[in-house]
Amino acid sequence: MSLIVVGSMAFDEIETPFGKSGKIIGGSATFIAWTAANFVQPINQVSVVGSDFPQAELNALAAKGVALDGVQIKKDRPSFYWAGKYHMDMNTRDTLVTELNVLGDFEPVIPDSYQGSEFLVLGNLSPQVQISVINQLKVRPKLIVLDTMNFWMETALDDLKKVLTMVDVLMVNDGEARQLSGEYSLVKAAHKILSMGPRYLIIKKGEHGALLFHENHVFFAPALPLEDVFDPTGAGDTFAGGFIGHLAKTKDISFENMKTAIIVGSAMASFCVEKFGTGRLREITQEDISARLEEFVELVNFDIDLV
Amino acid sequence: MSLIVVGSMAFDEIETPFGKSGKIIGGSATFIAWTAANFVQPINQVSVVGSDFPQAELNALAAKGVALDGVQIKKDRPSFYWAGKYHMDMNTRDTLVTELNVLGDFEPVIPDSYQGSEFLVLGNLSPQVQISVINQLKVRPKLIVLDTMNFWMETALDDLKKVLTMVDVLMVNDGEARQLSGEYSLVKAAHKILSMGPRYLIIKKGEHGALLFHENHVFFAPALPLEDVFDPTGAGDTFAGGFIGHLAKTKDISFENMKTAIIVGSAMASFCVEKFGTGRLREITQEDISARLEEFVELVNFDIDLV
Repeated sequence: MSLIVVGSMAFDEIETPFGKSGKIIGGSATFIAWTAANFVQPINQVSVVGSDFPQAELNALAAKGVALDGVQIKKDRPSFYWAGKYHMDMNTRDTLVTELNVLGDFEPVIPDSYQGSEFLVLGNLSPQVQISVINQLKVRPKLIVLDTMNFWMETALDDLKKVLTMVDVLMVNDGEARQLSGEYSLVKAAHKILSMGPRYLIIKKGEHGALLFHENHVFFAPALPLEDVFDPTGAGDTFAGGFIGHLAKTKDISFENMKTAIIVGSAMASFCVEKFGTGRLREITQEDISARLEEFVELVNFDIDLV
Repeated sequence: MSLIVVGSMAFDEIETPFGKSGKIIGGSATFIAWTAANFVQPINQVSVVGSDFPQAELNALAAKGVALDGVQIKKDRPSFYWAGKYHMDMNTRDTLVTELNVLGDFEPVIPDSYQGSEFLVLGNLSPQVQISVINQLKVRPKLIVLDTMNFWMETALDDLKKVLTMVDVLMVNDGEARQLSGEYSLVKAAHKILSMGPRYLIIKKGEHGALLFHENHVFFAPALPLEDVFDPTGAGDTFAGGFIGHLAKTKDISFENMKTAIIVGSAMASFCVEKFGTGRLREITQEDISARLEEFVELVNFDIDLV
């Protein structure tokens, strides 16, 4: 049931039509860990922070079942910092500030205690770092999930193509799927991307849900229709955390179980957007998660007689 | 099992990135009738055409089980004509020509033979015409479904608000739901619109599926991910035809059965976009429909243990 999570741990500063967050905790690995730890423990975290990263945050993660042996703390250097502003539709945003800081020259080191982990999720980071992690593992995990973004398609396409041949599941959003494949139709895009390496492709469409492609099969998971989306930051990472968390918990990597995992990911993402940053993820209980999953069943379940 | 369909029967001329249709048969009532007749017959059609409308088309509809007693033929006047051009994304289009012609002063007359019909679908037409049809019915149908569009919100809002108090189900797209309610969030928009009269609201999101709202319940039906969308014209009407066709066939207007009806509507709409105009709808068999419904079950069906 062991799961390695690789990604950023950072500071975010977010502005939405609903307000300003101030400087809060963010980062892909942070969101994934807070989410996946509801399903499986320990989370074997791999990341890097500066000396400004609050010890209280590290303690809170440890208390949630997150192992921090693989989290490097760089003395006298600042953590990764991102500031962004969402537009009225909450689907588009402008990046105001990106300061890589300790992430700029991050060289991940996998602790011995993490070796033998069965699941690996590579959160959005440079493909080179992602490759380095895979290469350090003595036994290949049962399932490797990769998240990436358009930035790496534009600046490190060769490395990205290489890491695509090393993973099982790729997660991208619809725009990124189109950019990576050169195809507008998501079905055509999916077929092209599946020929690049991963056996499974998840295309995230934000408020419009997510598609899972595998061979000639396709599965669709909706997003929960919400009164308000308060802050979408980290929703994709939270989705990844729920997805891998469910798979690692059940140890079943069949296509059928991946469908369920995507619903779990969607349910977890629907919590994430209710407050700034990881605020809502820190509060939720197993009962909250079960109730939300029930809402998803209600949302898509129908009876039909196929004669 | 009787169903009255009210709407336009027209000529369309469509340009897409895939080609030009030339002048072909279109109109909301045409798409609804071709679709619903797969589920229930007769379809009691109410519309108006000019002397230029092909007799062969009327014969083809009659052969499909569509009663034409309520279709007025205006001598020496042309049929409604619409020309439009789709953009590369196939989600947006420019109207090039709208010639109302016989539709401009259309006064529907319900034949005696249509009285007592249990289901009524009011395709996109002026709210005044829609009200006139309802007022002519001696017994209120079991279920009245209304389609409308932004044009009527801008030019006939008072009439539209009046007809909203007379119907059971409203169908609009996401942009129209936002316009009608003044709310960006579709959940908030739905609550406002449900307070205007209809007990059920369907929000169509094109390639992103459709939402059904009723009291505090919500159901989501995806659109089938397609390799290519060849021509989206009439997809919304076809969706309406599948929805009402299934309800009229089963005579069950429960919320549970409406969920199934929306899946049927989505399945039928997925055929519509495969060819220009009604081309694909004229070809499909019951076997095609069953196979497509099976694809929808595969698309959204998942197992989950809710503990």
